[in-house]
Amino acid sequence: MGMKGPLMSSSSRNGHNRKMRRTFNNIKITVLCGIVTILVLRGTVGISTILGLPSPSQETNPAILEDIDRILREIRSDLDPDSDQEVEYSSSLSNSTESTVKSNYTLGLKITNWDQHRRNWLSFNPGFSPDPNKPRILLVTGSPPNPCEQPIGDHYLLKATKNKIDYTRLHGIEIVYNMAHLDKEMSGYWTKLPLIRRLMLAHPEIEWIWWMDSDAIFTDMAFEIPMARYDDHNLIIHGYPDLLFKQKSWIALNTGSFLLRNCQWSLDLLDAWAPMGPKGATRDEAGKILTANLEGRPDFEADDQSALIYLLLSQKDKWLEKVYIERSYYLHGFWGGLVDKYEEMMQKHHPGLGDERWPFVTHFVGCKLCSSYADYPAERCISSMERAFNFADNQVLQLYGFAHKELGNPKVKKIRKDTANPLEVKENLNLEAGISF
Amino acid sequence: MGMKGPLMSSSSRNGHNRKMRRTFNNIKITVLCGIVTILVLRGTVGISTILGLPSPSQETNPAILEDIDRILREIRSDLDPDSDQEVEYSSSLSNSTESTVKSNYTLGLKITNWDQHRRNWLSFNPGFSPDPNKPRILLVTGSPPNPCEQPIGDHYLLKATKNKIDYTRLHGIEIVYNMAHLDKEMSGYWTKLPLIRRLMLAHPEIEWIWWMDSDAIFTDMAFEIPMARYDDHNLIIHGYPDLLFKQKSWIALNTGSFLLRNCQWSLDLLDAWAPMGPKGATRDEAGKILTANLEGRPDFEADDQSALIYLLLSQKDKWLEKVYIERSYYLHGFWGGLVDKYEEMMQKHHPGLGDERWPFVTHFVGCKLCSSYADYPAERCISSMERAFNFADNQVLQLYGFAHKELGNPKVKKIRKDTANPLEVKENLNLEAGISF
Repeated sequence: MGMKGPLMSSSSRNGHNRKMRRTFNNIKITVLCGIVTILVLRGTVGISTILGLPSPSQETNPAILEDIDRILREIRSDLDPDSDQEVEYSSSLSNSTESTVKSNYTLGLKITNWDQHRRNWLSFNPGFSPDPNKPRILLVTGSPPNPCEQPIGDHYLLKATKNKIDYTRLHGIEIVYNMAHLDKEMSGYWTKLPLIRRLMLAHPEIEWIWWMDSDAIFTDMAFEIPMARYDDHNLIIHGYPDLLFKQKSWIALNTGSFLLRNCQWSLDLLDAWAPMGPKGATRDEAGKILTANLEGRPDFEADDQSALIYLLLSQKDKWLEKVYIERSYYLHGFWGGLVDKYEEMMQKHHPGLGDERWPFVTHFVGCKLCSSYADYPAERCISSMERAFNFADNQVLQLYGFAHKELGNPKVKKIRKDTANPLEVKENLNLEAGISF
Repeated sequence: MGMKGPLMSSSSRNGHNRKMRRTFNNIKITVLCGIVTILVLRGTVGISTILGLPSPSQETNPAILEDIDRILREIRSDLDPDSDQEVEYSSSLSNSTESTVKSNYTLGLKITNWDQHRRNWLSFNPGFSPDPNKPRILLVTGSPPNPCEQPIGDHYLLKATKNKIDYTRLHGIEIVYNMAHLDKEMSGYWTKLPLIRRLMLAHPEIEWIWWMDSDAIFTDMAFEIPMARYDDHNLIIHGYPDLLFKQKSWIALNTGSFLLRNCQWSLDLLDAWAPMGPKGATRDEAGKILTANLEGRPDFEADDQSALIYLLLSQKDKWLEKVYIERSYYLHGFWGGLVDKYEEMMQKHHPGLGDERWPFVTHFVGCKLCSSYADYPAERCISSMERAFNFADNQVLQLYGFAHKELGNPKVKKIRKDTANPLEVKENLNLEAGISF
């Protein structure tokens, strides 16, 4: 576990490594500049391209432009002493002497004054003035651009998307459904980090980015997130404080559904969170550190959830004050304990509660219907997802006078008499009303 | 073609039929009332239920309540002379003497003063006051609740849904994605009629319902429908006047993408349109009439598009004044002639045009990827849909600095340098800007 090196103390070994790295970087810069010079002299690119100015003609091969761009960025990042981002996590979580992830990965050029930029932009764009009672939320979700390995996966992605369309329509929230891999190093569950960052920077009018997994389904269509509770926080995430602080469990928090404020603090968090993500050796090594330090974690590459838990525990003073660990409602609700109780909920309770009586979100962790491997039997997952979907759908259909015949059945039936005065009925409808059979 | 009867003139045969029908109805009413009486006397239901008042207890079996309800509605509809809706289309379209579809089907209880009801509701709900510059539009689409017969179908339904989410987010339009069969008689392409009606009546705040097929993709993300053009119209539909009036072609209009104003006229149109829809003998018979009267129509059951064309031609004076046959942009654009030209469009034009230079909607008529039978080879459809999807996706991704490497490729690449001042870039971004490679 961790990397072994020559017999030196940890601190002097780190100093030596840094010196060697700088030497290597100098050599690299020299070589890169040489390549650029040769390309310019060959006339393959114009000086204007090098200087980052609009090129007068479009004849330059775009692939070469892209390569030049990448080379230039590498040069600039090498020249910036702060860009050599090496994450060193405090080793206070474990007795291991090797708890450093060496990673030069960055999500993008460092941004340091985002709050001021946002304020300025909002003042120049009064049409987007924030409403303190209704902060703008952008729900972000997505799935890969290729068909699922298991065809049924695409069908439930579609149903889960329709489900999200319903909730967001009812609550005045916008959706971005992403199918692009913005950064090939940050693949799989890490995709969300560059995506969230990109959306924050592109949408200064948005106050909160709400990431939601594609396998998470809204099951309380009436529940409204109590945003006023979070005025002094920047990250709202479902979890259990005991599991986090006492047990240091790898499932103490759940990154399948969380809200992140669009602010400098969040950009900094994303920057600190990202370095365990790059696919390959970095992610594998980081996985070992996480398994060594978090209770119950199996052996596998670093995942974003474990990495966040580890980060928050390692740097408590820096981050925790602005993190709201929400457990009073199911911002994330593990499906296993919920899906068999929907009929009982319909008998005893009503939408709007959001908690164990009527869960806000039912999250099908481990079902992985889009993949060919999963943690639970596919049949169980499929029938449960169908139930959750119909349980939610009933809450929308009842506004139109319909309900599913049974939770496992896509067929619907009328639950109200037809009327020649539909608006009288409308006045009495309420999402929080009970579902009539 | 059509139904044969005994040797009588058409009008006296109709009179005799009506008399027989009334006698039958009287017998039916007597029997039904008898059944209800028996049930009440048995104490199975309370008098309050019969009178349609809230029942003091919930003990009555809901299935029986539903049956009673249905019986009572039948009784009421039998007592209402106007409810015996028999559609008689003018036979002016053909030389056939039999061009009547006999159908008692109705979409629901007749509503006659919807415009006044809407006005009243809006005056009591000032939060929904219409904005004349931005009428509220609800995009309605959907697909069946079961997995596609061809798995790839679900994947492209998902992509088409993501595409619709993008367009509507950019243009402030809400979506309803329907997966419920509200009326089992109105199946397949007829599903949209009861759905549209139900949504109109449930959403008086909505000015226009925009139906869009699940196989129609937005390919101009910048194009805004010129709603001011339609102040005096209630139905906006893509088509060709010559094909309609001269050739009476079955493809003169396209019901894959059309807008219907939320008003009494539209409810009346839906009522007049629906009777050819009910599955079975009615739809089969209606199909024969349509094939006999519309040019180029193959032999198959009645479809909603042919039925609408036939209705508008049969009752021109009643409907056409309020129908806008739009051909200046591709509210519907047949995919065949468009999908191979996207690269040329990207070279020469820009988003926002909506017409053949940059089509607003590319509609994959006949591909039917969700079914196991289609009019075109699946490979051709799949590769073309992928291109259309990525062509549209580029217009969204460019706002975030990305584009697809090629239209057939889901992978993306950066098209803009990273910057520490993202808002400067934002000011210059414009959906109508050209796509940079």
